[in-house]
Amino acid sequence: MAKLTIEEVNRMDYEAFVQTFGNVVEHGTIISAAIWKFRPFDNVKHLHDTICDFIALLPTSGKEGILRCHPDLAGRLAQMNKLTEESTTEQKSAGLDQLSKEELDFLNAANSKYRSKFNFPFVICARENKKTAIFEGLRSRVSNSPEIELQRGIEEVKKICYYRLLDLIQMGVDPKL
Amino acid sequence: MAKLTIEEVNRMDYEAFVQTFGNVVEHGTIISAAIWKFRPFDNVKHLHDTICDFIALLPTSGKEGILRCHPDLAGRLAQMNKLTEESTTEQKSAGLDQLSKEELDFLNAANSKYRSKFNFPFVICARENKKTAIFEGLRSRVSNSPEIELQRGIEEVKKICYYRLLDLIQMGVDPKL
Repeated sequence: MAKLTIEEVNRMDYEAFVQTFGNVVEHGTIISAAIWKFRPFDNVKHLHDTICDFIALLPTSGKEGILRCHPDLAGRLAQMNKLTEESTTEQKSAGLDQLSKEELDFLNAANSKYRSKFNFPFVICARENKKTAIFEGLRSRVSNSPEIELQRGIEEVKKICYYRLLDLIQMGVDPKL
Repeated sequence: MAKLTIEEVNRMDYEAFVQTFGNVVEHGTIISAAIWKFRPFDNVKHLHDTICDFIALLPTSGKEGILRCHPDLAGRLAQMNKLTEESTTEQKSAGLDQLSKEELDFLNAANSKYRSKFNFPFVICARENKKTAIFEGLRSRVSNSPEIELQRGIEEVKKICYYRLLDLIQMGVDPKL
C-alpha cells in the first residue's frame, strides 16, 4: 500500500482516519478518534506529539489500561496467531517467532512474574530491540517501582506508535522535523 | 453462553476481563482495561458506575473520541455487515435492519447532516428506542449545541454499556440495587 502524504491524512473524515490509525496505539481506537479533531497536522511528528499529549492527559488507570491492551511478547496470543497484524510484524522483527524451547520458557516465566508484580504486561518496542535486549529488559525492569515501570511502558508505547505511523505516512521533506 | 456471576467477574485476570468486557463501550477496550483494577465490584451497577466515572475523567476530545467509535445507525458498516456483534443485535432490536428505501434515505441524509454539524455520529441507545423514536431523535437533536449533544451522546453510550453488561453478568438478588 502506498504511504499517505500528510495532506491526504489531513483531508480524511473521522471514519477514514479511525479506520487507518485506529491501531497505532494497540487497541487504542478511542485515542485516534479523539485526536482527529486536532488536524491539520504539520507532519508525522506533529501527529505523534498530539497522540502523546492525549495519553499524558489520561489518569493513571487509563495509562495502565493502555499497557493492558498489549499482548505478552511471544505469549498466548502469539502462539495462537491471534496478534494484531502490527504486533505480528513487530515481534517477528525482533526474532520472537524463532525462539528455542528454553527461550520461550524463560519468556513465559518472566512475563508472568512481571504481570504479577505490576498488573500490566511488559511492553517494549520490539523494532528497537532484538531478543537478547528484550530478555535483558525483562530481567532488569521487573525490579523497578510500579510508578517508574508505568512511565517506562508508556514511553515504549509512544515509540511503537511512531514506527506504526511511519509505516502509514510519508516522511516528506520537512525542515521542521 | 451462561451469564457470569459477579464473583466470577471479580476473579478474572485482566486478560480475561478485557476479552469479555472490551466492547461494552464500543471499541473502548482501553476503558475496560483501565477499570479492571477497581475490582472487586459489588454488582453490575457498581461495575457500570466505575466505567462511567472513568469516562467522566476524560478530556472533551476523549469523550468525542468515544462517540466517533460508534457506527452510523443503518449506515455504511451496517450495509456491509461489518458492525460489531453487539451493534448488529441492537440495531436489529430497533427494527433498523428492516427499513424501506425512503426510511434509509432519510436516515443517511439525517446522519450526514448530524455528523457535519458535530463531527461525531448520532448515538442513541437502540434497545430503548424503536425506529420512529430514533428518527424523531435525529430530527430534534441536530438543533442542539455541540456541548449539549456531546453530553447527550455520552449518556446514550452509558445506557448502551449497561445493557451490554446485563447481557454478560447475572443480576443476582442484591438489596443494594
